[in-house]
Amino acid sequence: MKAVGIGLVGFGTIGRGVVRLLQENASLIGDRTGAPLVLRHVADVDTARDRGVALEAGVLVADYRGLLEDDEIQIVVELVGGTTVAREIVLGAIEGGRHVVTANKALLAVHGKEIFDAAEKRGVEVRFEGSVGGGIPIIRAIQEGFASDRIESIHGIINGTSNYVLSKMTAEGRPFDAVLRKAQEKGLAEADPAFDVDGTDAAHKLCILSALAFGYYLDLDHIYREGIEKITPADIEFSREFGFTIKLLAIARAKDGVIEARVHPTMIPSSHLLATVDGAYNAIYVHGAAVGSTMLYGLGAGEMPTATAVVSDAMDIARGLLRKAPRRGSGLSVHNSFLARGQLKPMNEIVCHYYLRFTVPDRPGILSRISGILGDHDISISSVIQKRREHARNVPIVIMTHAAREKNLRDALAGIDGSDTVQAPTQMVRVEPDLA
Amino acid sequence: MKAVGIGLVGFGTIGRGVVRLLQENASLIGDRTGAPLVLRHVADVDTARDRGVALEAGVLVADYRGLLEDDEIQIVVELVGGTTVAREIVLGAIEGGRHVVTANKALLAVHGKEIFDAAEKRGVEVRFEGSVGGGIPIIRAIQEGFASDRIESIHGIINGTSNYVLSKMTAEGRPFDAVLRKAQEKGLAEADPAFDVDGTDAAHKLCILSALAFGYYLDLDHIYREGIEKITPADIEFSREFGFTIKLLAIARAKDGVIEARVHPTMIPSSHLLATVDGAYNAIYVHGAAVGSTMLYGLGAGEMPTATAVVSDAMDIARGLLRKAPRRGSGLSVHNSFLARGQLKPMNEIVCHYYLRFTVPDRPGILSRISGILGDHDISISSVIQKRREHARNVPIVIMTHAAREKNLRDALAGIDGSDTVQAPTQMVRVEPDLA
Repeated sequence: MKAVGIGLVGFGTIGRGVVRLLQENASLIGDRTGAPLVLRHVADVDTARDRGVALEAGVLVADYRGLLEDDEIQIVVELVGGTTVAREIVLGAIEGGRHVVTANKALLAVHGKEIFDAAEKRGVEVRFEGSVGGGIPIIRAIQEGFASDRIESIHGIINGTSNYVLSKMTAEGRPFDAVLRKAQEKGLAEADPAFDVDGTDAAHKLCILSALAFGYYLDLDHIYREGIEKITPADIEFSREFGFTIKLLAIARAKDGVIEARVHPTMIPSSHLLATVDGAYNAIYVHGAAVGSTMLYGLGAGEMPTATAVVSDAMDIARGLLRKAPRRGSGLSVHNSFLARGQLKPMNEIVCHYYLRFTVPDRPGILSRISGILGDHDISISSVIQKRREHARNVPIVIMTHAAREKNLRDALAGIDGSDTVQAPTQMVRVEPDLA
Repeated sequence: MKAVGIGLVGFGTIGRGVVRLLQENASLIGDRTGAPLVLRHVADVDTARDRGVALEAGVLVADYRGLLEDDEIQIVVELVGGTTVAREIVLGAIEGGRHVVTANKALLAVHGKEIFDAAEKRGVEVRFEGSVGGGIPIIRAIQEGFASDRIESIHGIINGTSNYVLSKMTAEGRPFDAVLRKAQEKGLAEADPAFDVDGTDAAHKLCILSALAFGYYLDLDHIYREGIEKITPADIEFSREFGFTIKLLAIARAKDGVIEARVHPTMIPSSHLLATVDGAYNAIYVHGAAVGSTMLYGLGAGEMPTATAVVSDAMDIARGLLRKAPRRGSGLSVHNSFLARGQLKPMNEIVCHYYLRFTVPDRPGILSRISGILGDHDISISSVIQKRREHARNVPIVIMTHAAREKNLRDALAGIDGSDTVQAPTQMVRVEPDLA
C-alpha cells in the first residue's frame, strides 16, 4: 500500500488543525483512504513559533517553493489565505502537476476561473470544501448531491463572526460595538474584523456558491454587500415585535437566466429554521425545483471543523490517485462548460420587503407625509409601529412595506431624508418573509 | 460526446420522478455531466397504467431481465423496493458489469454486505444517496465530507411519516390513530404504514448510516426499535411542560469500538434544532470529534426529492464513465476493509434519561412507593408532576429521571407494574437532554 504525500503551505490556525487531524486520525484516515496520507513538508514563513504540535525534524520549512517540486508530494494544501502568494502557490502546484486543496474563499472568488482553467488543462484536481461553511459539506452537496436539480435560491448564514455578534446583540440587547469588542477579546472575532462584519467574506463565499449552483461566475465587485455595523438594538427589538429575526444573509437567486446576488442584514421570520441558527454556527438553506427546501448546518469556521473539510478533500483526491483517476472534474461549476451563463440583476431592480425606521419629531401629520411619499413611489405599507415617548423630541416611526422595487424604495428614502420631515437618516433593513 | 444509457426498473412514484427529472432537466443534466443521460428502458410489471409521463414507443417493458443484458445500458436504477426481486436485479446488474443506483434501504440493510462485495469484485459502483433522507445528501456527507473525522453520534429524524404524524399530534393535540388515518387519506402515509410507524424503516436507514459512520455493518435484528403508536396526547402535553418535544429518533453512537444503535420515540429539548424539524421533513444531526455538531435537513421522501438523489448518483457514475474511472470505491463504508469492526451494545446496557407516566389511584402514599422502588434500582428522580383531578379514580404521576441504566429501569418498571400500585401499564419514553 503506497503512501500519498501531502505538502502543506500555511501553518496558522487551520494549518495546525490539519496537522493535528493527520496525526490524531492517521489510522482511521489510512483505513478509509486505502493508503496512509503522509505529511512530507509544512511551509510557513514563521518556523520558530511553537504551535503545540510536534513535527518530525526537517518537515517544517520556511520556503514553500521546494514543496511544488518535491516528487514525494502529490497533493499541495494551500492555507496561507489572501490572493497574492496563495495564487502563486496554487498555480505553481497545478503547473507542476500536483493536486490542490484550498480553503481560500477570497482566492477562488477573485482568481477562481484562472485556477480552474489551469487545473482542467493540466488534468489535476482542485478541491475547496473548506472555503465555505467550515466543516459543512455544502460544496459536495451542490456539486453532486443536487447536480440533477435546478437550484432556485440560496440563503446562507456564512459568516460566523457576524452571526455571533448579531446573536449576542439579539440575546443581550447590547450595541454592535460593545459586542464586537467582547468577541475580539474572546478571540471569536479577528483583530481586523472588517471583511467579516462588512459582508465581504460572505460575498466571497456567495461567489463560489453561485458558480456551483447556477454556473455563473460572478464578478465580486458586482455583488451588493452591506454589513451589520448599522444594526442597532432598537432595530432588533422592533424586528422581534414584527416576528422577525435579523441575520446577515448571503442571498442568491436564479430565474430565467438572471441571477440575483446580495449580502446584507435581513429580517427573516423568527419561526424559520435559519432564524434558529445562532452563535458561530453557519447554515446554508438551498431551495431546488425538485428537491425542495434543504439546509446544511454546522460550525462555519475554526481550527478543527475547517481542517476536517480540508483533510477529507485530500483523502478524496488520494482515493482517486490510488485508482489512477484522481480527477473528478468538479471545478467551480459541476462541469466547466456550464460556467459563464446568465446575467446579474442590478441591485436597483431587486424586489423585496423593507423595514424602515424613521426618526421624526413627535408631532401629528408626519406619518401621513411619509406614507404619502412612499405611496408616490409605489410602495405600500403592511404595518406601522409608532411609539410615543413622554418629553422626547424625536420618536421612531417604524414601517414594514409590502414587496417593492429597490429603486423605488431608494428614491422614496432620498425624498424623505432630503426633506425636513425626519431628524436623522432613515434606517432600512431588507425583509424576506418567504425564503423558499 | 457519447451518451450514457440508463435502465430503470420500477415505475412507481420515485421511478416516475426519475423519468420526469431526466426529461425536464435533460439539457442541464447533459451539461453538468458532460454527456446526455439517455433512458433506454423502463421495466415494470404494470405497463398499462398511465403515469402522466410520456415514454417513447418501446421504452416501457414488462420484464427487467432484458435491461441487465442490454449493451446500451451502463447504469441500472433499481426502484422496485423490497428485498427479493430487488436483490436479483441489483446482483444481476453487477454480475453483468453494470453500475447500480438504488434508493432501497431495506435491500441495503439486509443484503448490503453481499451487494457491495459483489460490486467490489466486479469493479462496478453501487450508489444509494436516495436510500436515506430522500434528497438530503447525507450519504455523501458521511462518506466523503466527514471522512477524516471520527463520528461520535448520529441522531436522525429519518422517517417522514412518523415525523408528520407526531408533528400533527403535537400541533393539534389529537391522538395517534386519528392523525394517522387523516394522513393516509391525504396520501401522506402508506395504506400499510407499519414499517414507517413501528421504527423498521428508520432502523433500515440507521443500519446504512452506522456502517458509513462507524464502519460496522449492524444486523438489522439487533437494532432496538420502538414505534410511535404508543405516544398519547397526554405524553406530548407533559413533555411540553418539561420543555421537551417528542420525535421518533434513530440514534447511533460509537465509543471505544462499542456501537449503540436504537430507534424509538425520544424527548429532546424543544430549543434544539432537531425539535423544530416538522412535518414530512427529515434531518440528520451528526456530531464528529473534530467537525463538531452538524445537521442536514430536507424532504425525506417523495417523488421529486428522492428522484433528485437518484439522478444525481447516476450523473456521478456517468462522469466517472466518461473519464474511464467510474468506480470511486465508496461502498457501505468509505473503504471496504474498514467494515465489520466494533460490537453492538445490548439495549439493556444503554444509559439515558426516562420519562415515566404512571396511572395510579388518587390517594396519598403512591408517589413514595414508586420513588422507593425506583431508588432501589439506582434510578434517581429529576422532577415530578402530580396532577389532581376532581372525582377521577385514576390520576397520572409523571416522573423524569436522571441518567439511568435501561436494565435497572426495566426491572423497576416490572416491579411497579407487577404490583397493585398502578392501575395500568406504565408509559415510558426515553429522553435525550444532551444530543451532541
